[in-house]
Amino acid sequence: MAAGTTPQDNQTMKALVYAGPNKYEVQDRPMPVIQSPTDAVIKMLHTTICGTDLHILKGDVPTIPHGRVLGHEGVGTIVSTGSAVTDLHTGDTVLVAAITACKVCRACMKGLESHCATGGWVLGNKVDGTQAEYVRIPHAASSLHKIPDGLDLKACVGLSDALPTGMECGTVSAQVQPGSTVAIIGGGPVGLAAMLTAKLYTPSLIVMIDLDEKRLEHARRLGADRTVNSGKPDAVETLDAITEGQGFDCVIEAVGIPKTFELCQKLVAAGGSIANLGVHGQQASLDLHKLWDHNISIKMQLLNGVSIPTLLRLYQSGHLKPSDLFTHDYPFSEVGKAYNSFQMAAQEGALKVRIDFE
Amino acid sequence: MAAGTTPQDNQTMKALVYAGPNKYEVQDRPMPVIQSPTDAVIKMLHTTICGTDLHILKGDVPTIPHGRVLGHEGVGTIVSTGSAVTDLHTGDTVLVAAITACKVCRACMKGLESHCATGGWVLGNKVDGTQAEYVRIPHAASSLHKIPDGLDLKACVGLSDALPTGMECGTVSAQVQPGSTVAIIGGGPVGLAAMLTAKLYTPSLIVMIDLDEKRLEHARRLGADRTVNSGKPDAVETLDAITEGQGFDCVIEAVGIPKTFELCQKLVAAGGSIANLGVHGQQASLDLHKLWDHNISIKMQLLNGVSIPTLLRLYQSGHLKPSDLFTHDYPFSEVGKAYNSFQMAAQEGALKVRIDFE
Amino acid sequence: MAAGTTPQDNQTMKALVYAGPNKYEVQDRPMPVIQSPTDAVIKMLHTTICGTDLHILKGDVPTIPHGRVLGHEGVGTIVSTGSAVTDLHTGDTVLVAAITACKVCRACMKGLESHCATGGWVLGNKVDGTQAEYVRIPHAASSLHKIPDGLDLKACVGLSDALPTGMECGTVSAQVQPGSTVAIIGGGPVGLAAMLTAKLYTPSLIVMIDLDEKRLEHARRLGADRTVNSGKPDAVETLDAITEGQGFDCVIEAVGIPKTFELCQKLVAAGGSIANLGVHGQQASLDLHKLWDHNISIKMQLLNGVSIPTLLRLYQSGHLKPSDLFTHDYPFSEVGKAYNSFQMAAQEGALKVRIDFE
Amino acid sequence: MAAGTTPQDNQTMKALVYAGPNKYEVQDRPMPVIQSPTDAVIKMLHTTICGTDLHILKGDVPTIPHGRVLGHEGVGTIVSTGSAVTDLHTGDTVLVAAITACKVCRACMKGLESHCATGGWVLGNKVDGTQAEYVRIPHAASSLHKIPDGLDLKACVGLSDALPTGMECGTVSAQVQPGSTVAIIGGGPVGLAAMLTAKLYTPSLIVMIDLDEKRLEHARRLGADRTVNSGKPDAVETLDAITEGQGFDCVIEAVGIPKTFELCQKLVAAGGSIANLGVHGQQASLDLHKLWDHNISIKMQLLNGVSIPTLLRLYQSGHLKPSDLFTHDYPFSEVGKAYNSFQMAAQEGALKVRIDFE
Repeated sequence: MAAGTTPQDNQTMKALVYAGPNKYEVQDRPMPVIQSPTDAVIKMLHTTICGTDLHILKGDVPTIPHGRVLGHEGVGTIVSTGSAVTDLHTGDTVLVAAITACKVCRACMKGLESHCATGGWVLGNKVDGTQAEYVRIPHAASSLHKIPDGLDLKACVGLSDALPTGMECGTVSAQVQPGSTVAIIGGGPVGLAAMLTAKLYTPSLIVMIDLDEKRLEHARRLGADRTVNSGKPDAVETLDAITEGQGFDCVIEAVGIPKTFELCQKLVAAGGSIANLGVHGQQASLDLHKLWDHNISIKMQLLNGVSIPTLLRLYQSGHLKPSDLFTHDYPFSEVGKAYNSFQMAAQEGALKVRIDFE
Repeated sequence: MAAGTTPQDNQTMKALVYAGPNKYEVQDRPMPVIQSPTDAVIKMLHTTICGTDLHILKGDVPTIPHGRVLGHEGVGTIVSTGSAVTDLHTGDTVLVAAITACKVCRACMKGLESHCATGGWVLGNKVDGTQAEYVRIPHAASSLHKIPDGLDLKACVGLSDALPTGMECGTVSAQVQPGSTVAIIGGGPVGLAAMLTAKLYTPSLIVMIDLDEKRLEHARRLGADRTVNSGKPDAVETLDAITEGQGFDCVIEAVGIPKTFELCQKLVAAGGSIANLGVHGQQASLDLHKLWDHNISIKMQLLNGVSIPTLLRLYQSGHLKPSDLFTHDYPFSEVGKAYNSFQMAAQEGALKVRIDFE
Repeated sequence: MAAGTTPQDNQTMKALVYAGPNKYEVQDRPMPVIQSPTDAVIKMLHTTICGTDLHILKGDVPTIPHGRVLGHEGVGTIVSTGSAVTDLHTGDTVLVAAITACKVCRACMKGLESHCATGGWVLGNKVDGTQAEYVRIPHAASSLHKIPDGLDLKACVGLSDALPTGMECGTVSAQVQPGSTVAIIGGGPVGLAAMLTAKLYTPSLIVMIDLDEKRLEHARRLGADRTVNSGKPDAVETLDAITEGQGFDCVIEAVGIPKTFELCQKLVAAGGSIANLGVHGQQASLDLHKLWDHNISIKMQLLNGVSIPTLLRLYQSGHLKPSDLFTHDYPFSEVGKAYNSFQMAAQEGALKVRIDFE
Repeated sequence: MAAGTTPQDNQTMKALVYAGPNKYEVQDRPMPVIQSPTDAVIKMLHTTICGTDLHILKGDVPTIPHGRVLGHEGVGTIVSTGSAVTDLHTGDTVLVAAITACKVCRACMKGLESHCATGGWVLGNKVDGTQAEYVRIPHAASSLHKIPDGLDLKACVGLSDALPTGMECGTVSAQVQPGSTVAIIGGGPVGLAAMLTAKLYTPSLIVMIDLDEKRLEHARRLGADRTVNSGKPDAVETLDAITEGQGFDCVIEAVGIPKTFELCQKLVAAGGSIANLGVHGQQASLDLHKLWDHNISIKMQLLNGVSIPTLLRLYQSGHLKPSDLFTHDYPFSEVGKAYNSFQMAAQEGALKVRIDFE
């Protein structure tokens, strides 16, 4: 079906659905249709897989029903819009934000789109997501961003979630400023996204920390000033030496386990900030006896998506290269291979894996 | 000796000194003298006891040598100044800030007076303190504040540490704003100081939480909108009901044990802030699995002292009543009784206990 | 017609319309109906007159067509909603914000609701306003605020424009903080609204400046620490003496003529802020030769309306008294008298004049 | 005399002094000596001329006495220190900040070092300055910055005034953020310094505006995205087209005449900021009738010098190239030629002109 054609009720589409722990299937599903005046339906052009999708697949997110279409990232073309959507039109090429938001509830009014009463992270979670030929987007006006002409749509997929998460939950939460010293723990796509966005503020030093030498290589390629393998016995000493014992002004956790969060506490300078990007499954320890008088802040947050217009503009002006995050590319007909690559990221040297619809 | 007289080398003074765990003594000590061009020596008029002094007495701060004169709060009269002190003069009545700071080292340049390379919390810690007839104040120019005529010097003692700590480490760290909902755990002097300074921003609701009914009574008297006894089995439910399940925008920890810090995590709203005022002796747990996407910040810090001029002005203009924090008053000749009252705060209904020099 | 009844096409209502310079009429007008899925129609209960309405009447706003229903403030009951309005319902009692906003356009995304591509100040300006028995509210979801039970609806009218303007364009723009010294030039309703909201931050001093002794009296009644009649020859000297030559940290212009804006520049302290609330009809001079090294900021802005939920909460909690701004009250059948009172504010001692619908 | 040797009272040095309007002389002057415990005397290695020095020479700053040694920028070696200076030592190579500050007066406590009661811009103004073989620096501890080993001392001269002024009074005042659109009016050294520091925040667009094509060339060489010659009749239309009629988020005035300040008002976007860097000699007009509802801020300030440590670190880490600002270099024996070059900047294509001592 061509962009611009309204999907018919009797048509079906291909979609990747969660079929219970460790199981996914590509199914024929009814075409999504407008359900509310604020919806839009888009024909997907490109999507990608997030670490969260792997969590769901493992069965870590029990609230997600079997049969849910996964995915909350991507680029597509609008095929229909609800009656209240006035500034987006059939045929527009748009970026899907990972977070949808009504913009008027109590949470949204406080700048907490991630906690929107009827939005937040709903795509591929509470409603069917973007790893399908078509997807219905609630709160379309605030959740879709028109892509200016001339941008590489494949690269834009990095702006749905990875880069704005790196920006909002990493760089901004850690208060990176010109001249800051920055340590990032975890050189996966989100850690690297934090690094790319941290560089927008010209810190004097960025150190990437990971166990995987391939990721550290990626980090150096994308602009890390230094890399440290945290598996080395002298890693903490090395890191300490790098700042001459001062600690780092900004420490970003992008792994999601207690050990790495606890490492943040060792690395942060007096007066510094820890930003948590990791999706955690358990408690961690907080060294209050060492840190109570250390004048630090810790920030943890889910993406609000508010940085997307800025990041799009910076991509357009040549100051940000979202394509740097992508290492693998598959047609949707080989979505299984895409999942395999991403699940075996270490062996495959994979960062973000893109999936293209025909 | 009258104010304005320079102390002589052969003179002695009375001072309360730490004499090892659970032991203090009033000793005759040599009069302090100017050691550096930036020092001042002051004759104390009023001082007070801080929770930290009790920690020292218990032996919890092993770096403090036997023989150290305790105390880091108070009001006095300048009796001599170093050659580099130009704006303070013999005879001036001054407030002693708990934190001394050089204002030019790397930490001070970053606004971290508490981490000053040659300052921070040094009085009654690294050098002799204010529970003595005379005290030498390093970095006098930034650590002493002239008291405007007409203020009650006894009340000003609350501005050395308790109120600025409440302001900087509680109210400001918790980002209290007009209309915020505020929960404070711990109704001792510092928790109450946080409450009094939080009220400067007109939150819509302040709830004080404590185990001690007398402290809750003090809190109501000083303006808490609600109080909750955390010893009650339904305390969390009660607190939850107060905010209709939204949680508190601002949560201030003013106790210093893991349990109360962990309670903060239950009380904080999405998008809210936890400020730590407590002096902690051990690790606490951080519920990252519940909070990673909760968009909260946690701030922990030692006083920088920068709010003191503002608080003095607000006292002068009648907007702050430091005297509200004081419940007991003793002459220095009965300093032992003062310590007893403060150590038995619950039984005595004591908040801050003041000590007056003759 | 009762609240809850949908207006019919053939029904009419009474409305106050602009009929050309210095002319207004009460006309029978067709009932407003839903035109867009995001609209709501409300039956007005109370409205009020803004200084801007007088400007329009004088013919100062030539873009406003003859026949426009005036008014952008008020409280009413929802009688119908568009299909995209999900969180507001027929029968809800709501506050009308003076600014309507889509919340998703480029301006809104930057926090500039006042410059919304399809909103901003439109009521009583680009579309018919609230001085009528019924009004259609565009972008209803963000422009109407449900009023909690138990509040005095008459007082709430002060929260449509006067108080949020005082808060956002006065208090916040001038960066009022605890302990600040504040000068407000112009003791009309908006200047007083700035004063009431400035007090939420506990400045150490608020001085109200006006030519009209009755307004200065109102200011003292509502909490000004000092008042100065700017018509007195020694007014500037008096003001200078009040701050001991330091100038004021925060200066708020609430008149709208060059002379008062220029007075602001004489009053502001080094490092201070000038906030402009006045609606200006001409250029003013800026003393760059005196101020270029004075480290001051000047902020001028139209209301965004984002403070309304906070102000409603503060009214509900008893920390703000919007009724303080109202001095006169008329039924809509006597709307002419209401305009007279407001136009003759000096003689009548009038601040805000309320109009009540039956 | 070698670095490290204490100057003797009977020795003399060469110094450039202001000898009345349009007259300067190189004179033999007594060597400066320590006058206060907080002073240091330094032997100058490099200095430079500021636009302010030219203002003084023209007689525009009548408070400056004949015989004043000019200059407030430079790099040197400490030869003696007062008794209260503990962290700087004879032989240290240091950067002289244009602003000296006590750090403890009321102004300094508010972060207004430029308005320090006993400091601010005093060098080459209220006391003898840096265009001499030796200079006494008051408040040495906060006014001198040790230069890390390995930096090019000649380049560091750009960090005394030009770059921190560009940063604090231009980039920070204009609130440049990632993705901002920035217009700078005036491509002289300070305008270019604003441009270099604005780039630390990665704006999406920087446009330099000047009448002088050579300066526009410099601007393009140093990284301006676009340049516009404001002498062209269609300059405003061109600028308008560049932002598609949106205006610029950040507008920086770096000339100092009414016309350019008024141009800023035409260029600024709704919600944007104007930062004034220019040293103005007369009033300008402010278009309040057009801007009152435009939600803009205007900031004007004199350097506080607080960004110098950050800028030094960024130079050290390779993120800032102060040498980009220098086009000419003279030995102090040819200081007259240096002044000529700077006075004839347009003809000479001069930006900053450096003067080197032997």
